[in-house]
Amino acid sequence: MTTRRELLAALRRAVGDGAVVWRPEDLAAYEFDGTVERAVPHAVVLPSTAEEVRAAVRACLDLGVPITPRGAGTGLSGGAVPLRRGVVISTARMRRIIEIDPADRVAVVEPGVANLELSRQAARYGLFYPPDPSSQAACTIGGNVAENAGGPHCLALGVTQNFVLGIEVVTAGGDIRWLGGRSPDPFGFDLRGAFIGSEGTLGIATKVAVRLLPVPPAVVTLLAAFPEVAQACEAVSSIIARGIIPSAMEMMDRLCIEAVEAGFRVGYPEGAGAVLLVELDGLEGEVQAESARVRAECLERGATEVRVAASEEERALLWKGRKGAIPALGRLAPNYYIVDGVVPRSRLAAVMERVAAVSARSGLRIANVFHAGDGNLHPLILFDEREPGAGERVLATAAEVMRVCVEEGGTLSGEHGIGAEKREFMPWLFGKEDLATMARLREVFGADGGLFNPCKVFPGGTGCGEMGSRAAAVRAAGPDAYV
Amino acid sequence: MTTRRELLAALRRAVGDGAVVWRPEDLAAYEFDGTVERAVPHAVVLPSTAEEVRAAVRACLDLGVPITPRGAGTGLSGGAVPLRRGVVISTARMRRIIEIDPADRVAVVEPGVANLELSRQAARYGLFYPPDPSSQAACTIGGNVAENAGGPHCLALGVTQNFVLGIEVVTAGGDIRWLGGRSPDPFGFDLRGAFIGSEGTLGIATKVAVRLLPVPPAVVTLLAAFPEVAQACEAVSSIIARGIIPSAMEMMDRLCIEAVEAGFRVGYPEGAGAVLLVELDGLEGEVQAESARVRAECLERGATEVRVAASEEERALLWKGRKGAIPALGRLAPNYYIVDGVVPRSRLAAVMERVAAVSARSGLRIANVFHAGDGNLHPLILFDEREPGAGERVLATAAEVMRVCVEEGGTLSGEHGIGAEKREFMPWLFGKEDLATMARLREVFGADGGLFNPCKVFPGGTGCGEMGSRAAAVRAAGPDAYV
Repeated sequence: MTTRRELLAALRRAVGDGAVVWRPEDLAAYEFDGTVERAVPHAVVLPSTAEEVRAAVRACLDLGVPITPRGAGTGLSGGAVPLRRGVVISTARMRRIIEIDPADRVAVVEPGVANLELSRQAARYGLFYPPDPSSQAACTIGGNVAENAGGPHCLALGVTQNFVLGIEVVTAGGDIRWLGGRSPDPFGFDLRGAFIGSEGTLGIATKVAVRLLPVPPAVVTLLAAFPEVAQACEAVSSIIARGIIPSAMEMMDRLCIEAVEAGFRVGYPEGAGAVLLVELDGLEGEVQAESARVRAECLERGATEVRVAASEEERALLWKGRKGAIPALGRLAPNYYIVDGVVPRSRLAAVMERVAAVSARSGLRIANVFHAGDGNLHPLILFDEREPGAGERVLATAAEVMRVCVEEGGTLSGEHGIGAEKREFMPWLFGKEDLATMARLREVFGADGGLFNPCKVFPGGTGCGEMGSRAAAVRAAGPDAYV
Repeated sequence: MTTRRELLAALRRAVGDGAVVWRPEDLAAYEFDGTVERAVPHAVVLPSTAEEVRAAVRACLDLGVPITPRGAGTGLSGGAVPLRRGVVISTARMRRIIEIDPADRVAVVEPGVANLELSRQAARYGLFYPPDPSSQAACTIGGNVAENAGGPHCLALGVTQNFVLGIEVVTAGGDIRWLGGRSPDPFGFDLRGAFIGSEGTLGIATKVAVRLLPVPPAVVTLLAAFPEVAQACEAVSSIIARGIIPSAMEMMDRLCIEAVEAGFRVGYPEGAGAVLLVELDGLEGEVQAESARVRAECLERGATEVRVAASEEERALLWKGRKGAIPALGRLAPNYYIVDGVVPRSRLAAVMERVAAVSARSGLRIANVFHAGDGNLHPLILFDEREPGAGERVLATAAEVMRVCVEEGGTLSGEHGIGAEKREFMPWLFGKEDLATMARLREVFGADGGLFNPCKVFPGGTGCGEMGSRAAAVRAAGPDAYV
């Protein structure tokens, strides 16, 4: 058994004194990623280079200490929570934009670069990085790679998987490798593709080469208000059925609209059962034509009002409501738990009805704000963690919602990953042998010791405890219980 | 050592008498996939179900006999050639379209379904399957998965990787597994992504779930003729720089235009140094607006003529030239060898110049027809295999062209894969350890015995022989030399 003192000494040798966090009050900042799971690491390492990441990984492997990689900690599925404690390796200091090449439309960045910062810097060349999670001001490219992150504008353009060309990683076995490269068209075995979305279980990205796209010359943003969610869902399907693929198509339900209005006064129509935010981009003439068609389609499906943003300010205001929707729900309850599921677009209306029924049965309010065009739901379960048993009730309710998604032909995650809390649901969709084949991928990256981001993605696992009671058990263990 | 008789008996037990091909005259049809490598298998199996594929794979593994999967044999990189002989497993009898779901826009097909056949059947619902290799009338969805196939219309929409949701495979270890599923948004470890483009080295696809897209309501096809290739390359870059992403942007050089005109009389402008075929699709108004801009851009870059197809017939004729370009080159020489490389779009003009220099030095004529928008080159080296040493000269010239692509920041394959002949070039782009990490992926799929599509993708390998001399050695070995 390694002592805490030995661990800290080894980490200091690996990355230097100034890159090791060890005071309990500092470590507390790394216990949480916005879900119900919490666990405090024994130490946090803040490397500045790939070589330092490798040195830290090797030090932990040598001592048999678990490693949990962390980007900005905005994943909302427990992926960055060190459930078996040990060492968190944070990429927060690796935030250089190494290169932006406007001719090839490629950027090479370190993993700690914030998503929005990349688009800001690329804007100087008229370019942007399309995947845009709502947390884009904070979340990092490295974290986006780990979660295969999406965002409102991924409907037409695709998710992280479609924009990452190559990744330099420190593997779970402690080696530096390039997966893919700077050019499009992967060839050979596509380990780049397999690494994206592996939720920090296979290694840590240390450089990421991404594709950029030109900022579209014209953008139109529309807001349509509907009496009922079902009508808004039908409008989504019928817009897409007409051959229009908006750059974004986002929906909010009544509870969400109320929270946003109370928080930001963005002017969403009062009393609406649902609003649909639709964005179209392209050349001036074409977006005007499409905008007229989207408007007509919404009115035909029962919209009571369709508003087109007349200026960049109005556009920003409409989006402010959407991007701030999740924080705004903090006004309705002290805590929320986000469920991330995907269903076939054609099943959206039926699924929303079933989610409402789950909410009624559980006694917990559920607000909905989501990427409607993709069928990527985000039911938000509102609760107060100070109520006894609240955590367990929330997790049970979330499990019911996930079950609905799977029963309606959907899957367990659109963009937040499986993380800690959904891994017990993996057998709903994958057979035991399929899971075993998948898990063998860890060996390719040298993760055979089970020390690399343990208790994530796959069900079971030694020392991971049981769903729900896990967080409490780890909390009860205290900061010095074991390394 | 297994005898041929024992092998045939085992295969018959696995799949039944009627699914085993063994007569030398029948086996000859499986020795070739359009490149210079040839090798006759000892037997060919034609299974009808995933269970039969599994039984055949297990029979071969038990006997230690190499297995080479085969789709339609149109890959043009040697991937389907049984270089260590043994058994070819063909998916030719697995050609059921299991399901087309217009609401979710998903189709589930068996691997032997021809690419174009899927789009034809989907057309009944106003849908199509976007990746469209030039061989689409023959090539199969299973083969497309193996090669991560692209095509002219992949510029705006993406390649096979972007359209395959899930794959049922018989792994190289002889198990049936699902990778991914019917829904978008892969989660968990993305073995689906890793399998696509693995060139038949990890297993055999037995069912494929794909995304379909709506047939666009309006299409405009333009043909622009330029005095020089360099001007056409500049037009490609400047069209994309203006924010227009055509659905296709294909280029042909002088030699290619001559061959096409001699073969089909499609009316390509006489004496042009290059033609650019540009297709735009979307809503009526927007394609008209974009078409005007593309036309203006081409004229500005020196086009001597820009022709817009005025009818569906004219459009089909313009495409007939492109889709038939490679066969048409058969009029200029008895054999051709296709090189498949990718370069940054900004380097296209420079690369074309260097390819012309390679052609001049080698004394072999090189025609160019390619996906210009993607920077995916297809220099076609014309030769006569009856001339002594022709094969070696062609391979050496192809190697020089590949070297140019890599030196200009490109890669080794856009859509035909690495196969047999380009595997020796892999170290130009990947370090030894990167290749070793990649190769370990085979173990995930149980391919540890080295029997599954041996001598492909990775350099070296026991019993694979040397580049160039390999084909001759295998030919010399004769049909019964060893199993």
